[in-house]
Amino acid sequence: MIKVGIVGGTGYTGVELLRLLAQHPNVELRAVTSRSESGMPVSQMYPNLRGRVDLPFTEPSLDNLGECDVVFFATPNGVAMKQVPELLDKGIKVIDLAADYRLKSPAQWQQWYGMAHASEHLLAEAVYGLPEVNREAIKTARLVANPGCYPTAVQLGFLPLLKAGLIDTQTLVADAKSGVSGAGRKAEVHTLLCEAGDSFKAYGVAGHRHLPEIKQGLAHISGQDVGLTFVPHLLPMIRGIHATLYARLTSDVADLQALYEQSYANEAFVDVLPAGSHPETRTVRGANMCRMAVHRPQGGDTVVILSVIDNLVKGAAGQAVQNMNIMCGLPETTGLNHIALLP
Amino acid sequence: MIKVGIVGGTGYTGVELLRLLAQHPNVELRAVTSRSESGMPVSQMYPNLRGRVDLPFTEPSLDNLGECDVVFFATPNGVAMKQVPELLDKGIKVIDLAADYRLKSPAQWQQWYGMAHASEHLLAEAVYGLPEVNREAIKTARLVANPGCYPTAVQLGFLPLLKAGLIDTQTLVADAKSGVSGAGRKAEVHTLLCEAGDSFKAYGVAGHRHLPEIKQGLAHISGQDVGLTFVPHLLPMIRGIHATLYARLTSDVADLQALYEQSYANEAFVDVLPAGSHPETRTVRGANMCRMAVHRPQGGDTVVILSVIDNLVKGAAGQAVQNMNIMCGLPETTGLNHIALLP
Amino acid sequence: MIKVGIVGGTGYTGVELLRLLAQHPNVELRAVTSRSESGMPVSQMYPNLRGRVDLPFTEPSLDNLGECDVVFFATPNGVAMKQVPELLDKGIKVIDLAADYRLKSPAQWQQWYGMAHASEHLLAEAVYGLPEVNREAIKTARLVANPGCYPTAVQLGFLPLLKAGLIDTQTLVADAKSGVSGAGRKAEVHTLLCEAGDSFKAYGVAGHRHLPEIKQGLAHISGQDVGLTFVPHLLPMIRGIHATLYARLTSDVADLQALYEQSYANEAFVDVLPAGSHPETRTVRGANMCRMAVHRPQGGDTVVILSVIDNLVKGAAGQAVQNMNIMCGLPETTGLNHIALLP
Amino acid sequence: MIKVGIVGGTGYTGVELLRLLAQHPNVELRAVTSRSESGMPVSQMYPNLRGRVDLPFTEPSLDNLGECDVVFFATPNGVAMKQVPELLDKGIKVIDLAADYRLKSPAQWQQWYGMAHASEHLLAEAVYGLPEVNREAIKTARLVANPGCYPTAVQLGFLPLLKAGLIDTQTLVADAKSGVSGAGRKAEVHTLLCEAGDSFKAYGVAGHRHLPEIKQGLAHISGQDVGLTFVPHLLPMIRGIHATLYARLTSDVADLQALYEQSYANEAFVDVLPAGSHPETRTVRGANMCRMAVHRPQGGDTVVILSVIDNLVKGAAGQAVQNMNIMCGLPETTGLNHIALLP
Repeated sequence: MIKVGIVGGTGYTGVELLRLLAQHPNVELRAVTSRSESGMPVSQMYPNLRGRVDLPFTEPSLDNLGECDVVFFATPNGVAMKQVPELLDKGIKVIDLAADYRLKSPAQWQQWYGMAHASEHLLAEAVYGLPEVNREAIKTARLVANPGCYPTAVQLGFLPLLKAGLIDTQTLVADAKSGVSGAGRKAEVHTLLCEAGDSFKAYGVAGHRHLPEIKQGLAHISGQDVGLTFVPHLLPMIRGIHATLYARLTSDVADLQALYEQSYANEAFVDVLPAGSHPETRTVRGANMCRMAVHRPQGGDTVVILSVIDNLVKGAAGQAVQNMNIMCGLPETTGLNHIALLP
Repeated sequence: MIKVGIVGGTGYTGVELLRLLAQHPNVELRAVTSRSESGMPVSQMYPNLRGRVDLPFTEPSLDNLGECDVVFFATPNGVAMKQVPELLDKGIKVIDLAADYRLKSPAQWQQWYGMAHASEHLLAEAVYGLPEVNREAIKTARLVANPGCYPTAVQLGFLPLLKAGLIDTQTLVADAKSGVSGAGRKAEVHTLLCEAGDSFKAYGVAGHRHLPEIKQGLAHISGQDVGLTFVPHLLPMIRGIHATLYARLTSDVADLQALYEQSYANEAFVDVLPAGSHPETRTVRGANMCRMAVHRPQGGDTVVILSVIDNLVKGAAGQAVQNMNIMCGLPETTGLNHIALLP
Repeated sequence: MIKVGIVGGTGYTGVELLRLLAQHPNVELRAVTSRSESGMPVSQMYPNLRGRVDLPFTEPSLDNLGECDVVFFATPNGVAMKQVPELLDKGIKVIDLAADYRLKSPAQWQQWYGMAHASEHLLAEAVYGLPEVNREAIKTARLVANPGCYPTAVQLGFLPLLKAGLIDTQTLVADAKSGVSGAGRKAEVHTLLCEAGDSFKAYGVAGHRHLPEIKQGLAHISGQDVGLTFVPHLLPMIRGIHATLYARLTSDVADLQALYEQSYANEAFVDVLPAGSHPETRTVRGANMCRMAVHRPQGGDTVVILSVIDNLVKGAAGQAVQNMNIMCGLPETTGLNHIALLP
Repeated sequence: MIKVGIVGGTGYTGVELLRLLAQHPNVELRAVTSRSESGMPVSQMYPNLRGRVDLPFTEPSLDNLGECDVVFFATPNGVAMKQVPELLDKGIKVIDLAADYRLKSPAQWQQWYGMAHASEHLLAEAVYGLPEVNREAIKTARLVANPGCYPTAVQLGFLPLLKAGLIDTQTLVADAKSGVSGAGRKAEVHTLLCEAGDSFKAYGVAGHRHLPEIKQGLAHISGQDVGLTFVPHLLPMIRGIHATLYARLTSDVADLQALYEQSYANEAFVDVLPAGSHPETRTVRGANMCRMAVHRPQGGDTVVILSVIDNLVKGAAGQAVQNMNIMCGLPETTGLNHIALLP
């Protein structure tokens, strides 16, 4: 059994990790920490876990985490970068679901997250945890930076075209839509039901924190810098991301559908739908899955890719468990075979 | 492995059965029938099942169902009563998720469902599949009438008080609220998103089909006829039933909380929350669970019970699988350990 | 033109007052105050008011409010009771949308709102602003306590039966459901879209602040104390209250439908639906209207009344404008003829 | 008073027309027709209109419509083209909210709508009713083709850039999202709450009927053919369209914000938000208004325009009333000053 700890278990990625790990056949939950709720039973805050998670929240100390094999950070940005070094020193593997180790450049981190990096010596070592791109490196990683939700949907969508070198990399467009759970469980006015419900808007058009992460990832995949316009939007629902991606073909291509199907033929968690499909976010609700479809409207030279994930699963907790499985030598799908809840 | 067939797999109880059975360790899905969609792959209609259910819909014939050990009917009311007899004759166990075998009186069936009963000789034999009441009879049943969604939430809520004989049985009130999936997947105006969304209403106040079923069940539990006012309402959401139950105490009772906790101490799928709780439907979303709380406002003689289920799980498909487990001698929780999806 | 000020214009009752008053033909908006947002244009916070309300938020001082004829308080409970006396002294009429002047007993105020009353000498004078009950007193009032949202729906629903003396007043049940906007625009976890959305729960079963207000109102209508069980619930939507009311008949009554129709025949803002109807909250969305239906299920002695309002309109801002019209001698419907937005 | 008839009043554009016209100071409603519901009071189907619209639905005959000054068609596509000629012959002005007269080419009509045009001699005469483009022609029109909802939001968004000749007209992208009411009130599975709720998807990527309409409109505005990729999506809510538009600058431009503000300075129903804004659909809910913002992310050469309307108002019924006002010589804003319902 893998002994697992979660730092910052009160947020939505935390409770989703708990849902997945409590049903994982090879995991023993040892500690769930929360500075603010220390002492409260986890299942009091999240009654869906009654009878399944019997731990209380505890202080995020080495006393509580020191005997874990793997520790997940489900904390706000800027927390993990301070606590990770001592865990690694103890030989504990770390998977950070926040952004702390995603950007390779400490200057970019400071620019987009507004604080100096507290452990920038680890940035080079940290492996970006997108298994479909970095599986080999993840196998041996001590520290995995779990990708953001938008970056997962966008990178998986563009990947086959970029690898094949078929598109203009300077004029990419990602029009992405997210459920409100992506904003977390903080008490804020703009995510109240009466503000975010029954309405729709874009946000962060001038620049969203996931932009540098996506550009870094796409550049890594394609081997060159990319130009990307990224517009996130807020959907009046809880879970789900839909990325609508636009790229211009520079070479002719016989069969986009085949290209996509072949690219992901061996991936358990990427599902290329039949030609002409329109994936719905509900088909991945609660499941560690990215479903996508590729279109070429009216046979023109613009390709449209539709890519959906559950932002809390393949976009966060599920992908983190997928990374844990890889790091621990388990079959990648262990504990991740949930079927999406539909309707 | 239990060889299982589903008759009428295109509706919401059908797809929910498929979700549960496809993950059940002792089940082999043999046939999913649909007269209208015969030939279409099941996963084309329900892409959440891609890679998990590889069957096509087939005709509901003995050819397709004859080798099953258990057949579930997820058909509209009035279908099972015609087809069940020949399946029973073949030695196949049947669990009917429709209403065909729930009412013991053929006259009541005709009154509330508007048609003569096609196999009323089976009404006496059919076991009402509420395990918390009829577990022993279910073990040996050939034919189980799976309870309705409202009846499940209401009966489990009143049960401890009725068994203890503490309340006036003539003035019961059940104010119940259901998500729209309870109405099924038929194309009808009143369940369109633009009709049922962002609004709330009561319906069927003059008399709802679940009224005689609930009264029959409560009478069975209490050993006497009951008087019940039942008002169902439609919630602007997909899954979930919340029953708010009102009863008047006739005897004083030392500790209602203890009464409820003891009544359900050995039940895996009924969870009595701590005193003062208010169960949320989301804490059972996707899970085979009834959570409830009991209140006595201002210490008066009115008891208020709050009882929540997922209408598609403990209110339909999950309870049906629970019944199958009991009928087949499996541990009752087999394949039913899903944790509710929250948020 | 009536010169109008609003104290506390940043909340949902504030913006709804602004929507109604900006379209009112006899009103000139003079000041909208907010301590926290002083200086910000109102239409920056609420872009639906762009081009219609050109005022900035200002400090809630006599300088800003002193020249008003009428001042509305849309502040949290406990604010108006401190500021109202000096406005009344200036000869300004006040309509308080908070609870400060609703309860006649200062002891009850302290018990339910947790603070001593700052101007209890005004409690006797303050008129409870339910026009269908207190129209004559409102005409000459200096200070009107605008009713709460639940109390409006519940009192209007029970009124005809209580006035006619047909029901047992000791066993009333009000099972009420409210949209989330009733909780205001405060940043709190439990009203986040991811907490209150796609779910349903009861709350405050042990005792809700509207309970003493409703009981006081029902006692006033019936001329005797009443026994009431009041269970509020939170709907996963923004606007709308649906009260489902239960009462036991003590006398036989020839025609409940006629009783209700006659009771409200002269009321512009109460609409008794035809026999057998089920009012939907969406039929009053944005409109100053209470629609209701009366049922007697299975001809028994339990009466069920279904009563719907928009909690922000007939349950708050609309009723406040209705009171202003009455206090200022305008036709009661002036500026209140909006048709509900459906769908 | 303008005597007005509505053909096909049972759908969502019909009831929205009724809401607006019942409150219009210069309109007298004479007939609301529906073949299927003939005889039923309009307010029985739409209780929000109780006390405001006293007409029953009637047959769509000249007997019923012959004395109208203006007739609106809120019928399915293909109905108006058969009935309009005889109304025009009677001297009645017609505003068609369906697509029958939007496309100038009868071949395109046949291609996209799958039927031959029944009155193609009127296509040249029909004026495309987008007042911000065709106001002068509308003034004297007998027959106005009211624009589609997507086309309104998209054309108004691109208009300033196209008129100024600043962008590459061959690589336009319109990523548009619509509430479900755009699909009408037909009983269909895909618009059930349980299908369209709590989920998000694209549809019609291969080609949507609004594509040729938008391309025709943009070509008219820019004076040349345009290349457009148009991807519509379905939002889990009732009302509102959000178009996110992408264009590549070909010339440098000093001040996009000023360009947009000046373009619409004299338009009552187009509101350019301050620089940096993100319009929300709720700020136009129920209002005849298009709000928009223009962005140039990271100072690059991609312009992003965000444009929101209520699909039933500025995208249908409201714009139709705006056209009626223009055709009848009334001030354009008459009866259209509703403030959006927020929250």
